[in-house]
Amino acid sequence: METRLSPAAPGDLEALIRMLARLPGLGPRSARRAALHLLKRRESLMQPLAALMLKVVDGIRSCSLCGNLDLVDPCHICTDRRRERSRLCIVGDVADLWALERNGLYRGQYQVLGGFLSALEGIGPEDLPLARMKARIAELGVTEVILALDVTAEAQATAHYLTDMLKPLVPEVTALAHGLPVGGELDYMDDGTLAAALSARRPFRE
Amino acid sequence: METRLSPAAPGDLEALIRMLARLPGLGPRSARRAALHLLKRRESLMQPLAALMLKVVDGIRSCSLCGNLDLVDPCHICTDRRRERSRLCIVGDVADLWALERNGLYRGQYQVLGGFLSALEGIGPEDLPLARMKARIAELGVTEVILALDVTAEAQATAHYLTDMLKPLVPEVTALAHGLPVGGELDYMDDGTLAAALSARRPFRE
Repeated sequence: METRLSPAAPGDLEALIRMLARLPGLGPRSARRAALHLLKRRESLMQPLAALMLKVVDGIRSCSLCGNLDLVDPCHICTDRRRERSRLCIVGDVADLWALERNGLYRGQYQVLGGFLSALEGIGPEDLPLARMKARIAELGVTEVILALDVTAEAQATAHYLTDMLKPLVPEVTALAHGLPVGGELDYMDDGTLAAALSARRPFRE
Repeated sequence: METRLSPAAPGDLEALIRMLARLPGLGPRSARRAALHLLKRRESLMQPLAALMLKVVDGIRSCSLCGNLDLVDPCHICTDRRRERSRLCIVGDVADLWALERNGLYRGQYQVLGGFLSALEGIGPEDLPLARMKARIAELGVTEVILALDVTAEAQATAHYLTDMLKPLVPEVTALAHGLPVGGELDYMDDGTLAAALSARRPFRE
């Protein structure tokens, strides 16, 4: 039997707290607080949230082209005719795609990898949607692939692998610049960031 | 119109993120992460969580005696015949009741206030369930009321008010001790805690 998180609460409440504790950002203690918050707002929040979740469970699907999550397949980004067809941006996760879309500066196509190459986790090239991506690159006539991947060891190893794979297929393979973040203070930066910023230094323009 | 948190997501997803952001402990960014976590686990987490929430919405009620949240009214604490009837513990919130029950040392009755007296928030004595509590004290034949309230200005003002009200009705009105928390280090304590611990000092026993 699992640990009882809140002995005063009957079974269903404990199950609710345990499920909420599985959300990222919530531990056992904050899951309990969240459960109480919901219990006090049963009509105004808990019921509508549950109904909406069921609606989304029912309606959401992975885009068979780019891997985005949407209510339609292909997703509304892949079917948006105003977006450039010649640029493809590779991201690790749907969250990264959303982050770029919030920013709004990029108006091309996407490919969500859904993971990075990892010997530790046993993720090899065959676990990434690479065949589908290569077919799409040919079909769209992509002239630039932009690697928008995390700056972690596994993501950067994946970037190297993808670059080798894509070089023969696409005129240009670029990657997001590494360096000091905007608002960053030099003496708080780690060595890796400082080294990246120094080696990528550019002529200063006013 | 409200700010669109994630323009890439269609309306329902945005609504889901906004609702999750209303949970304590989740901001806009972590609500987005939680939503994605749910979207990736639609069958294993999102659907069961939603179904359970609806079940709980339907089944949960406030105990008409003590204010606890339970699937039955009166709650299972109020109807537990093994618990002492002569002790009543006053807590601010259901979360406090749960915290004491997790601890398991207290085996008496409870009264949840649901708030503290606050001039700022316009909460007066008439907004607390005091008449109900007085009737219950008489009915149960309570001989000790234990004030288990937060150590904040409003909670302690409420404690003073309750003590004045209860003194004529109950032989003994006690409060949880204030002092150094177990594991606390002296040089990290605030002045209020140090002053409370000093003024409540006791003979040292081995």
